[in-house]
Order: sequence, then C-alpha cells, then structure tokens
Amino acid sequence: MPIDRLSRMPERGSSDRPTLDSLLDSELVGTLSTVSPDGEPWVVPILFARDGDRVLVHGSTGAGALRLAASGAPVAFCVMALDALVIGHTTFASSANYRSAVLRGTMTRLPADEASEALDLLSDRLIPGRVAEVRPSNARELAATQVLALPIAPGSWIYKERRAQASSPDEQTDAWGGLVPRVTSWGVPEPAPWTDADVPPSVLGLAADQPRRDDTAFRQ
Amino acid sequence: MPIDRLSRMPERGSSDRPTLDSLLDSELVGTLSTVSPDGEPWVVPILFARDGDRVLVHGSTGAGALRLAASGAPVAFCVMALDALVIGHTTFASSANYRSAVLRGTMTRLPADEASEALDLLSDRLIPGRVAEVRPSNARELAATQVLALPIAPGSWIYKERRAQASSPDEQTDAWGGLVPRVTSWGVPEPAPWTDADVPPSVLGLAADQPRRDDTAFRQ
Repeated sequence: MPIDRLSRMPERGSSDRPTLDSLLDSELVGTLSTVSPDGEPWVVPILFARDGDRVLVHGSTGAGALRLAASGAPVAFCVMALDALVIGHTTFASSANYRSAVLRGTMTRLPADEASEALDLLSDRLIPGRVAEVRPSNARELAATQVLALPIAPGSWIYKERRAQASSPDEQTDAWGGLVPRVTSWGVPEPAPWTDADVPPSVLGLAADQPRRDDTAFRQ
Repeated sequence: MPIDRLSRMPERGSSDRPTLDSLLDSELVGTLSTVSPDGEPWVVPILFARDGDRVLVHGSTGAGALRLAASGAPVAFCVMALDALVIGHTTFASSANYRSAVLRGTMTRLPADEASEALDLLSDRLIPGRVAEVRPSNARELAATQVLALPIAPGSWIYKERRAQASSPDEQTDAWGGLVPRVTSWGVPEPAPWTDADVPPSVLGLAADQPRRDDTAFRQ
C-alpha cells in the first residue's frame, strides 16, 4: 500500500514540509511502533526532537523497543496534537481538530561521537537552555544511553489535520455547534527537596513559552 | 517475549486494574498500532473510550487501519499522559513524569445493534451529556460508521509510570532540580457561525471538569 498518500479525506493531508516540521517542533512525545520478530506490533511512547531532516529519540541501552528499532526493524513514528473538540449539531457531525503525522523508515543508532551532541540537542529541545546550566554528561552516562535517528525523507511520511469549525448542518436544527479548544501549558515549577538554588532561566523560560491561544484552535 | 511484564524498571509498572482504568478514563486519544499484510508497522492516532473491560474506537467504514484491525490483525493500543518534565541536576538525571499503557490483542467489529449503543457511550465519554442534547444517529450515519472493541484481558496489557520528584544527586551540585507540571485544560467554547443557540450544558460541563492541579504532578 502507498505510505505517502491518504486514501481517505486527502483534503486533510499535506505534503508541505514546514507544516510537518511545525507539528514535530510543537510536540514532545510520539509513539514509536515497530514489529517484533514474531510479527507482533510493538509500541512505546517516547520523547523526541526534530533535528533538521531527522527525528531523534533516546533511551537506555537496555530498552528493548529501541534495540529492535536499532537492528533495522521497520518503524512508524506517530505524533499527534489534539487541538479542539468539534461539537456538531449531531454526534455524527462531531469531530476533533488535530494535527498528526506518521513517519516511516528504519532507524540507525548514532555512533558515540555523534550521540553526545544529539543528546544535548534533545535536552535543549525539551528544556531550552538547560544544557548550558549543568555539567556535561560523562562517559559512563553516555555509555548507558542510545540515541536513534529516523530520517524524514520525501515520500516517507504523511501529515493529516482537521482545522475547521463544526460543519454547517444540512438539516433544520436548534442544536449548538462549535469548538472547545484544548489548551496545554506548563504549571508552576516545584523544587525538589534537595535544592536551595533559584529556579534557573531554562525552567522559567518554559512557563514564558506558553502556547498562544490562537495556535490551539481554528478561528472562523 | 512476554507481553505483560516489564523487562526494564519493573518498579515503574503496575498490574493494578484501577490504575490502568484511571489512565484510560483520563485520556481521549490513543494510538492504534497494527501490522500490515506485508509486515510493516501501521499506526493511527484515534479517539477512544473505555467501556468496562474493553476499549472502544470508531471510524468510517472506509478507514483502512480499522478494517485491518477488524480483520483480526494483532493490535497494540497505546495511551500516554505526560504529567511533568523532571529537571535533574544533570541532563542525564532529567526525565519525565508520565503514565502509559499498552494493551494488546485483537479487535472485533461490533454488530449493528451493539454499535449504536457503543457510539453513544463514546460520544458521552468525550462530551458528557451530549447524546441527550441532540437527535439520535440515523440509519445512514450508523451504516457509515464502524465500531471496534479491544478486550482488556488479564495479562494482555502493561502499565508504566514515573510519578516522582527529581532524583537526589549522588554528587555535589549547585544545580536546581524539580518538576514542571504539564497542565491540560479546555478553553473558552467558540460557537460556529451557523448557530444562535446557547452553549449547552454538555459543553459548559467540559470547562467545569478541568483537571485538578494535584492530578497532574507529584507533590513531595
């Protein structure tokens, strides 16, 4: 089956790379699906970061799903943002606004000299500025960590979204219809009991970088 | 490989069914992974609802991934909630607080007489009270929709979470450590241009049912 075309509702699709990147750069967690040697689906949720034309994930060298992916098993990496519930005039006409992507391919484990830099990139993507605030990872820590990369290649991904108001009814109705946006934000930092330090700029920056209201739902 | 045991960090796992149900009942979206006839991983994000000892999903009768699942292909259904970023004294000691589950099995498509009731349950799970506010689905709408069920059977699922403060450093450090909670809430409803109706109780109820602050992160 074709993996880069949508068989249903192709008008919801996009092959625009900046549109894909915008989703990948707005989310922190995806799901990594692969197939076990005995043909079973295998999936793990995982933190990720886009680095140019690739998606990076990391984990312990003991993580089974990553070892399977690093061995060359085909993977499908899924990222999804739920932006709003769409309340139609019927339940059938109700829906959700979302952005989603599935990237396919095979992953490669980065060699040690590239893994260190990639881990810094991952850390700074999750908590911008944090790498400069703490000591570098040491050899023992790096040896315990594997970093895998999935190329974002033309034709290897699909993007799909719904970003619209509730559809106009094709019948007489008194029912309300509209959107209920889903808003995700960072709460107040909670210091661990072992620290007396001030909350660092990286953590303060997370709270400052709240999603803008108009990013999360469609306005008609 | 065993599918109901965690090979890594088993202390993060739980075989407690209420713990699983609590996660399933707090989230709206999961990812449905399966394996295509040619052995490739296939994944779609999808709205879902727990109904007792099963997970329900629905979609168009044309949806390929659902047709594949309905044909008896093995599936893995993944649900994940990101609750907080965990800021350690190093990037290596940093982590995330999360709750996650993977349910495995095969899905069955519900017969027409059960599908209608299941669709109402799905709708009322997403927007509690909405079903009573609108007309019932008609025969044409029901015929265009498939509903699939995945049993939640003992031994067929794994649950894993991290719900803790940043680990205490095993070295001298001046670095800050703590949690940054991830908070998800519903925004202000946005009426569609075609409606003059008042915002209904079901939609008002979503805003009233905001996550409590202490649900979203661990307090030490």
